Amino acid sequence: MFDIRPVSHARDAAIQHAIDTKTKPLGALGAIETLAAQIARIQDTLTPRLDRCRLIIFAGDHGIAAEGVSAYPQEVTRQMLNNFLAGGAAANIFARVNGVDLHVVDAGVAGATIQVPGLTSRRIAAGTRNSAVEAAMTSEQCETALGSGREIGQNITAEVVAFGEMGIANTSSASLIVHKLTGVELDVLIGCGTGLDAAGLARKRAVLACAAARTPARLDTCEALREYGGFEVVMMVGAFIGAAQAGAVVLVDGFIASVAALAAVELAPPLRDYLIFAHRSAEPGHRVVLESLSARPVLDLEMRLGEGTGALLAWPILKCAAAMLSDMATFETAGISGAGE
Amino acid sequence: MFDIRPVSHARDAAIQHAIDTKTKPLGALGAIETLAAQIARIQDTLTPRLDRCRLIIFAGDHGIAAEGVSAYPQEVTRQMLNNFLAGGAAANIFARVNGVDLHVVDAGVAGATIQVPGLTSRRIAAGTRNSAVEAAMTSEQCETALGSGREIGQNITAEVVAFGEMGIANTSSASLIVHKLTGVELDVLIGCGTGLDAAGLARKRAVLACAAARTPARLDTCEALREYGGFEVVMMVGAFIGAAQAGAVVLVDGFIASVAALAAVELAPPLRDYLIFAHRSAEPGHRVVLESLSARPVLDLEMRLGEGTGALLAWPILKCAAAMLSDMATFETAGISGAGE
Repeated sequence: MFDIRPVSHARDAAIQHAIDTKTKPLGALGAIETLAAQIARIQDTLTPRLDRCRLIIFAGDHGIAAEGVSAYPQEVTRQMLNNFLAGGAAANIFARVNGVDLHVVDAGVAGATIQVPGLTSRRIAAGTRNSAVEAAMTSEQCETALGSGREIGQNITAEVVAFGEMGIANTSSASLIVHKLTGVELDVLIGCGTGLDAAGLARKRAVLACAAARTPARLDTCEALREYGGFEVVMMVGAFIGAAQAGAVVLVDGFIASVAALAAVELAPPLRDYLIFAHRSAEPGHRVVLESLSARPVLDLEMRLGEGTGALLAWPILKCAAAMLSDMATFETAGISGAGE
Repeated sequence: MFDIRPVSHARDAAIQHAIDTKTKPLGALGAIETLAAQIARIQDTLTPRLDRCRLIIFAGDHGIAAEGVSAYPQEVTRQMLNNFLAGGAAANIFARVNGVDLHVVDAGVAGATIQVPGLTSRRIAAGTRNSAVEAAMTSEQCETALGSGREIGQNITAEVVAFGEMGIANTSSASLIVHKLTGVELDVLIGCGTGLDAAGLARKRAVLACAAARTPARLDTCEALREYGGFEVVMMVGAFIGAAQAGAVVLVDGFIASVAALAAVELAPPLRDYLIFAHRSAEPGHRVVLESLSARPVLDLEMRLGEGTGALLAWPILKCAAAMLSDMATFETAGISGAGE
């Protein structure tokens, strides 16, 4: 189920040589060169092409929202889902400007089933249970979410895919998952999310400490997802794996998406080489997750919105990196003197 | 000559209010919000539009190249100019991917006059004199370069303009100018440029120390430009001023462009508010220049190529920032509950 073809390293020397003969000083394009090489490895070619990017936003609700861990009420998840479908959210704007195709998946939003044209429904339930007092979902729900995500990922035909999320209280879910997967102290992993004040943050810390105390210090990947996951988070885990199985370049957004990526890499280690980390979120736990994955994000814009907004901003940079390798002249073709000549 | 209309702060509160009512937590778009506000101030509107970006690359040669301060021979300036015109350089590729209009100006490349379709000729001379032993240019040449640049800047009709440069040895020129303008120790401002080895860097340091010793410790802006400038650097100073006079949002590229921007801001302080700094270059002196200008660049990709490549990568991010402010739904229009409701 989690088999991913490891990225080929057979062309590594040829890719580096191609980059080094382009009309620029050695290494002068910095991170762009690293990105180009990674994309070339994923596509197993010296002339990578990135024409299309698709963003899929998974939305889901969290029972733990009842504990008052977010600055916003739970109904905002559903309202924002409608905002995505109406084209008014930040993700819509960035997607439109950068020519990205945006899709929305209902992974399990609280309340009645949502029937709106353009929405993909993969509802597991009307939100998870409250992980402060019990497991967020059953094993069956967790497996269904993983499977739905994987199927969504596998069906992607764009060369690049990004996953975004929307779910009130999902920074709480993400912090708990990282804590259980890495053993890093919970307090380091908790931030203000959508903008809690000092009292709100203290409350969130207390609630999450209780929730964490419910289970052993460390959990395996599937246990952590089942105990603390959101349906949108678990579906994203499956989607990461499915997208890599489809051979896509996978753009990872911010904190929540990176936590899903961390879990997905634990389930399917070859996934790591397919992942490009879009940005460093202002949410403090993100640093820990990025370090665990030895990831160096493309952007650092102090954003903390989710929805795939960081990934959308990074996409044109990936496109430029691939085009650099495929289209730029070499010293030889352009008739340019080399260093020290 | 250097009069620039100061950016209006009359709408500051209205701009901030518009950003704060968008469907996202307060401040959650980080640097994108700061950029949007700056663009709105420059355009004096609550609904900024950035449809077009133009990149102008100024090319010029430096007499000091004869001292062996670059890893590449001087002829590479002319060869790269031809590469730009043929569409094979990194700047061409990034411009094409991001829909930017690219123009090349011969500000004073060594050798015979270049006559190629598509090239704008504003040649001051066939390269500057060797600033290690004498002033790089005469006062008249400096004024002509400033004037040509200003005229080029003033004629820009795109909402965003970026200036790039090409000129073997122009990091030497830039380091000397910053040293004379800011008084910061020369050694801190000197880097490997196009990729000098340790011996080459030692040589560059020795040559630049000699060149700096030729004149008093500090110089005024025009003196520093005349003594150590390249024609492409001085023309860029004029172009920054002209573009702001035309009301454009001005994207500053890397080290050389930022040094030109520093000089231009000294000549015309209201310019500062029109400038957006695209990226932090790997060239060490860039940090000093950015600090002098209290600038926080959009990107940090360890690039050190020039040509406007950093600016080209930042352009889609500016476009997204403007569209965020103009097009994103508000809590009210989208019917979304606010924080704490």
